[in-house]
Parts: sequence; C-alpha cells; structure tokens
Amino acid sequence: MPSEFDLITRFFTRPAQGEGAVQLGVGDDCALIAPPPHESLAVSSDMLVEGRHFLPGADPKLLGHKALAVNLSDLAAMGAKPICFTLALSLPAVDDAWLAAFADGLFALADAEQIVLIGGDTTRGPLTICITVLGHVPFHAALRRDGAHVGDDIWVSGNLGDARLGLELLTHHRSLAAHHADSALLRLHCPTPRVSLGLALRGIASAAIDISDGLMGDLGHILQRSALGASIEADALPIGTALRSQDRQLQLEFALNGGDDYELCFCASPSQREKVLAASSTAGVAVTRIGTIEPIAGLRIIDLDGTQLPIRSHSFDHFALS
Amino acid sequence: MPSEFDLITRFFTRPAQGEGAVQLGVGDDCALIAPPPHESLAVSSDMLVEGRHFLPGADPKLLGHKALAVNLSDLAAMGAKPICFTLALSLPAVDDAWLAAFADGLFALADAEQIVLIGGDTTRGPLTICITVLGHVPFHAALRRDGAHVGDDIWVSGNLGDARLGLELLTHHRSLAAHHADSALLRLHCPTPRVSLGLALRGIASAAIDISDGLMGDLGHILQRSALGASIEADALPIGTALRSQDRQLQLEFALNGGDDYELCFCASPSQREKVLAASSTAGVAVTRIGTIEPIAGLRIIDLDGTQLPIRSHSFDHFALS
Repeated sequence: MPSEFDLITRFFTRPAQGEGAVQLGVGDDCALIAPPPHESLAVSSDMLVEGRHFLPGADPKLLGHKALAVNLSDLAAMGAKPICFTLALSLPAVDDAWLAAFADGLFALADAEQIVLIGGDTTRGPLTICITVLGHVPFHAALRRDGAHVGDDIWVSGNLGDARLGLELLTHHRSLAAHHADSALLRLHCPTPRVSLGLALRGIASAAIDISDGLMGDLGHILQRSALGASIEADALPIGTALRSQDRQLQLEFALNGGDDYELCFCASPSQREKVLAASSTAGVAVTRIGTIEPIAGLRIIDLDGTQLPIRSHSFDHFALS
Repeated sequence: MPSEFDLITRFFTRPAQGEGAVQLGVGDDCALIAPPPHESLAVSSDMLVEGRHFLPGADPKLLGHKALAVNLSDLAAMGAKPICFTLALSLPAVDDAWLAAFADGLFALADAEQIVLIGGDTTRGPLTICITVLGHVPFHAALRRDGAHVGDDIWVSGNLGDARLGLELLTHHRSLAAHHADSALLRLHCPTPRVSLGLALRGIASAAIDISDGLMGDLGHILQRSALGASIEADALPIGTALRSQDRQLQLEFALNGGDDYELCFCASPSQREKVLAASSTAGVAVTRIGTIEPIAGLRIIDLDGTQLPIRSHSFDHFALS
C-alpha cells in the first residue's frame, strides 16, 4: 500500500501553474499565498460524510466535483473571488481508480474556476471529505447575511427543488420520466456554484446566502442575522424543470425545504432591480424576484390571493435526520 | 436533537474578541479576515480520525487540545504567526458533555495562542476532526523544507520518543513506572506546538519541518525537497525523559521513528549557532544539535565510533498501518 505522502504526490500534486496569489503549494508544512492587499480574505470549510451527504457507492468523479462545488458556493454567497483550497480526505482503502476519478472531477471544476489545490491530508478511515476554500473580496463589498433592509426585494438564482427530487429518486424510488430523472440527478450530483453571479452582485445585493439546506431555512438565517421578517410569493418561486412534472404541493415543499440547491438567495433594494438583472445577464444566471423583506419577524409563504400557506421551515439538517 | 446551527451556536460561538485580523467570524457563509499586508498567508489542514489518530473513547478535552495543537505545529514549522482556524467536526451523536469538554480543550489552547475560531461545520458521522489553521509570515522569512544547504547543522527542539512510548502503553500494555507512564501519556495526548520557537528562528533556520511522523521520515522530506543527504549522531539525540528508562535500542527506535512528537527539526548554518541558542532561550524551548547536512543522498545514523547503524526509516504512516 503506498504511503500517505505518495498518495498526495500521485493524485493531488500538479505542475505549478504560476498563479500569482499562490506562492508555495502542496509539499511543505503550510502553503503560502499572497492575497490581494487591501481586500479581505474569505474562508469557509465544509465536511462531506458518506451516508449523510452522499450515498455509499457515489460516483467518485461527481463527488470530486460536488465536494469543491459546495465550498465554492459559500464563496459565491459572499461575493468573493476564489483563490485556492485545501483537501483533507479520509478513505477506507487506497483505490487507484476511485482516486483518479475523484481527482478528475475535483480538478475539472478547479480548472474551470482557475483555483489551485494548495495542501492536502490523506488518511485511512470512513470516507470523509473536508475542503477549505479561500477567496478574496473588498471588505465593504462582501455579501453578508446581516445586511437586509425592510422593503428589499428577495431574489433567488436558477431554480429550486430538483436536487431534492433527485434524492427522492435514489432513496424512495419515485418514478419519473427518464429525461426528468436525468435532470434531477444532475442537479443533485453536479451543482454549479454561482461564483460569477456573486461577483456581479457586489455593491448591488444587501445580503446573500447560498441555499444548501432549503430556501426557508437559509433565508431564515438572513432574517435572523438582519433581525427582520419576510414574505415569499409561492407562485413566484422558480420551480426546477423536473419538479414541474409533479403536483403543486410537492413543488412548493421541495422548492422551499428541499436542500442541495446551491443557488443564491439574496436581497436588494427595489432601486437596484435593473442592476440585479444586468448582473444576472453578465453572469449568465437567471434570477427571479420571489418576495419582500418586512419588519415583522418570521417568514410567510403567501398564495396568489394573499392568504398565508401553512408551510413551515424544516430545512435539511444533518443532525436532525435519523 | 438540536439542529446543526444550534450546535455551532451553543458550543463554538464566542463573544467577538476584537482581534484586529478577524473582521467577521462564525455565522456567515464565509469568515472574513485581514492578514497583515505585505506578508504571506500560511495555510494548513489536518484531519484526525477516531481509531487512526486517536483511540476510541479518547478524553474529549485532550482531543480538543491535540486537534488544534497538531495544526499549530505546522504553522510553527513554517515560522508563521497563527491568526485563526476553522473546525469541521463529524460526530456519531450530539453529546453535550463531550462537546463541552472538547470545546474547553480547544479554546484553552486557542486562547493561549491568541487565535480565534472563525468558522465551523458540524455533521453526524464517524468521529472525525478537520482543522484548517491560518497564519502569517513574511514570504522570505518562511521556514521551508527546501532551503537546507550542505554543511548546515541539524537541530531538534525538546526531546523525542515519549509520545510513541505513551502509545505503546495504551496499545501493548507495556509496564512502566507510574511517573514515566504519566509523562509519556502527557506527551502523546497533549503536545505543545513550538510556535514561539518557529517565530524566533525566522531568518536563522534555513529549513524546518515539524516531527509528526517520526524524525527520520520527516527529516527525509527536508532532504528530498533540498536534494541533499544527512548524518545524524545517534548519541546526540535528545531522548524523552520517560523513554530514557528503556533500553538503548528502543530509545533509538522511538526517537528516530516514533511519531506524534510535534517537535521542530530544523537546519541552520554553523555560523548561526549562537543565534539558534538565543532563539531557543527566547522561546523557552531547548534545542539540540544532532547532525549535519551532506551532499550525498540518504540519511545515515552514526554511532560514537563513526559506524553507520542499521536503522531504517519506517515512519508512522496512516495508510501503512493496517
């Protein structure tokens, strides 16, 4: 069995790519980077555990993509430009084919985002992936959770709920037309971090979060940190293309409480609508206005006739699942 | 069962401490930090897995200390000043007493080093701890692995082998006088990262590494990256105080190939000897000169009479252990 050091060398060390910010990459006690002066460094860590965040036997190439994508999604939600990342990987056994495919998926996304793996740690153990991403953003342009104002529009990028429908396909064997099933599974396994949209929203959005645990739960964090409430128009929600084949109740449930969407939910003053749409166009990512920030605490889901629907937040929670 | 968010709030969110470099801590999509301009940011990630890096049932307070200590040891080996860290924690179940004790051990060391937890991720799964530390160091003062020169002295801090003796106590029930057993177990469970020594060696040491996998293996990384060899004088090795009670063969074996020492091994020109000793005095950490960097590849362990001892590197390797 190869040593830990060989494993990093074989699968995760790549020729230096001359990126300006990374001064010293994999292979020393620490990596050294030089972030742009006068900007803040944005840092986020996420851990993915087999059987909790992905099913046993998950395709390693898709897993490599997703592990990095969910971390980049946090940078996107901050309006930060990604620089580099570290990877800590616990594996039950050294499996060359698995590692090669995992590295393929990981580096394909890293290359697309022009970011570099700067450090690694591999160990034997239950399959667990921990990535820490670093990016940069001018401090006053960062899209925080605590910046929403009363009267702000609430927007979401892309569409919602298909990833959750994909999970249902895998775990409850829900039947679905083949093209819808493919589309839902793609959303589950291969999320696209909205990095370019986050960058384009600097100076426009007042607050932002990425939707990893469900819109209601994640928007709830903005409301909590901003000490405000909100109403969402149920019929304004952008429903996933596969999910549109299902009944309205399931559409709303999965769009509002689905999880694994990795879209951005953000707030912006109504005076910024044209700029929001221009940012959407620049980033090539659709955005939809779904509601309004209000002074009264709580998150209300409103029907077309103005009545409040009895939908409560029970967002995806790794500890609440049995 | 409390939600993931509550868990972070309850155990890992602390009042803002006004540290200059940390602009936004736990509770947003990313943390924001402002490292000193014109310095490099040093980054390292380590993952600790139950049953591999620590035994099932390990004391959570000691584990909190050790998980952070082994990461700080990487910053020390780079000559970097610690700023902050992220924590990703996978737990089989929410156990308040365990979490409180883990947080106690973690924050006691964090406070001693004046660093801040800036982000967290908690999930249910096999007990796994992944910490990423961030520090800063002027780029040209960083203690890299690739800077050793022919003729450099080789030094180690503290003493070696007691942690490995402690592991033997736990796993092979070796008998040992009580005070030696306590001392060996303390070294295993409660390593002291040599941060102040790393800082004091800036501009003095030509290369450095921390000894996590055993002196021979870790010094081997310096030799490989510097494309050089070395001789070590067996009788110059600083043997751990508990290990001194054992026979010479075990002393050498555990000092050279023990693992979990978290001392620094570093190189410096003979012209720097007085400065090395002054740095040792400043940091309050003993250092011992144990050998010399040589042009011929390989690492030779030399006896008092100049003969080479038949000791080979078989450093602690998480993947090589069955």
